[in-house]
Amino acid sequence: MTYPDMLDYSSSGGYAPLRRAVADYLRVFRSVPLDVDQVIITSGTQQSLELCAQMLADHGDTVWLEDPAYWGAVKAFMATGLHLHPVPVDQHGMAPSAADEAAPPRVIYTTPSHQYPTGAVMSLQRRQQLLALAATHNAWVLEDDYDSEFRFSGPPLSSLAGLDRDERVLYLGSFSKVLYPGLKLGYLVVPKRLVGAFKQAHYDLNRPGQMPLQAALAEFIELGHFASALRRARQSYAQRRQALLEALTPCLIDAKAQITGAEQGLHLCLRLPNGVDDRALADTLAQQGILVRPLSAYCLQRTDSRGLIIGYGYATLEDIQRYGPEMAKMVCAELRKFPV
Amino acid sequence: MTYPDMLDYSSSGGYAPLRRAVADYLRVFRSVPLDVDQVIITSGTQQSLELCAQMLADHGDTVWLEDPAYWGAVKAFMATGLHLHPVPVDQHGMAPSAADEAAPPRVIYTTPSHQYPTGAVMSLQRRQQLLALAATHNAWVLEDDYDSEFRFSGPPLSSLAGLDRDERVLYLGSFSKVLYPGLKLGYLVVPKRLVGAFKQAHYDLNRPGQMPLQAALAEFIELGHFASALRRARQSYAQRRQALLEALTPCLIDAKAQITGAEQGLHLCLRLPNGVDDRALADTLAQQGILVRPLSAYCLQRTDSRGLIIGYGYATLEDIQRYGPEMAKMVCAELRKFPV
Repeated sequence: MTYPDMLDYSSSGGYAPLRRAVADYLRVFRSVPLDVDQVIITSGTQQSLELCAQMLADHGDTVWLEDPAYWGAVKAFMATGLHLHPVPVDQHGMAPSAADEAAPPRVIYTTPSHQYPTGAVMSLQRRQQLLALAATHNAWVLEDDYDSEFRFSGPPLSSLAGLDRDERVLYLGSFSKVLYPGLKLGYLVVPKRLVGAFKQAHYDLNRPGQMPLQAALAEFIELGHFASALRRARQSYAQRRQALLEALTPCLIDAKAQITGAEQGLHLCLRLPNGVDDRALADTLAQQGILVRPLSAYCLQRTDSRGLIIGYGYATLEDIQRYGPEMAKMVCAELRKFPV
Repeated sequence: MTYPDMLDYSSSGGYAPLRRAVADYLRVFRSVPLDVDQVIITSGTQQSLELCAQMLADHGDTVWLEDPAYWGAVKAFMATGLHLHPVPVDQHGMAPSAADEAAPPRVIYTTPSHQYPTGAVMSLQRRQQLLALAATHNAWVLEDDYDSEFRFSGPPLSSLAGLDRDERVLYLGSFSKVLYPGLKLGYLVVPKRLVGAFKQAHYDLNRPGQMPLQAALAEFIELGHFASALRRARQSYAQRRQALLEALTPCLIDAKAQITGAEQGLHLCLRLPNGVDDRALADTLAQQGILVRPLSAYCLQRTDSRGLIIGYGYATLEDIQRYGPEMAKMVCAELRKFPV
């Protein structure tokens, strides 16, 4: 690639060595069988989501999404004019029922590795069921694998893209978590039959560029710095996670609260009894400088989910050790209002 | 702004010193009276256009756009599900008639400084008419001022945003032309009443970042390097433009062809008789390594526009001196087929 090309827009799906690095990574770590040609570098998951919504569905088409849901996806689908159909999540992930099939999906959006925000890990059986169901309705599946780099316990599960046999899964990843959010580089893996149309649309609608940044990242990966950064990040997040779990232990007495989703990622969910006003609790914690999010704020339709989404991507180990016990104390005080 | 914030998404509309630099530039050079708060840094004009389409109109709403039109805008509006209503362009720019008002616009998209692609400069009278018409229909006006940094001749004209008295013009600019396209930084100036909603939506839908790049650009501007780059670019483009005009002179004999839009920007339009197959002519030129675009390819509805859009942003002075006369020869050969 010559100098002027590096300063121009890219119609090829991104800087080739970066696409190769992504393909190598996904083949090895996510068991996704893919050609480098299927990788499209985007400016992150929001752009990937929007491109998928624009390309795979028409205005008014139905998208299934998890309830509770990742609000970035909710916004992207709303902006694209799709009809949002919330599907409840249980401990095995997205759990569509016959009632849901009355609103057949054109697109299914899911976070199987670590459901956002509950943290449920989709079981292998559920993954296969979901793919079969997608085939029945001839629907596309968007697999948002936003934090799979950080898996702390539990068995490894193949990605949906790895299980896909009929080219209907699109896989979304990002460099936000290992490096930093403002980097604004992510990737989208599309089935072979969609490669041409997606690259053209990505060029037409987004005019992708940032080739010097892509080249720097490719070199960063090739020289092994990315692997080191990932290793350091894993260690650091594992320590924070451990400290957070220890701090929250007092809340788990009497089984009135449970922790879900701690196996992976940069957040966990502290599930609370249905009567808890989790928004008020989050507000009270915020007054103490402790920023957590109420689970109910992520719910689209269901009213049976209360809890706190506690992230440890931003908080330092010292923060967690200092504020964690205080947070637990305030949660325990709230829990005492409820019968055992 | 502290170190971790620089690596995060930005909810404030972008790096403050860069927004200040843009505001200062627009006040002085484009006569736009604005607060720095009204400036939102985007990843370029495509993102600005899409955000405007998403925020200002609903699916199926009518957008007026120029015919012939900038195809990047066409794609953005199509992807957002707007109804495209083409309005013919004459030598004074976008020229709506009573017939157009039968399809009242929710949004009007226009390139008044240098109509893309014909190069028509919108007259002051037409600007005032367009704003009055927008007021009548309570429509928003998107002013895409994509190349106003390069004005070589003709009187300076106030931007629509500078003439706007009732907060309905949104102004779109980009750093692509002075620096390089792949930089992916542009700006959107919104009326005060829209600032809050646009910043929130920009954050929700696009998760803007790239703060280190924004900081570097802000410093580049503050230290005067941008002004130098602009000066050098102006000189360079002025030379290329002059060489191109000289090369094309033989085509203008007999007045069968005219040059329009050479006062400004990085391209001009060589208008040809209606009977010329401009696509075939562009194909023939491409076989000689001369890349120009047929004017008819930009037309949405009208069939009376033939010509060549000849850009000199990519071609070097040497390229133009070498290939320009050859291009003129081939155009002249085509013109000889038509009676004087």
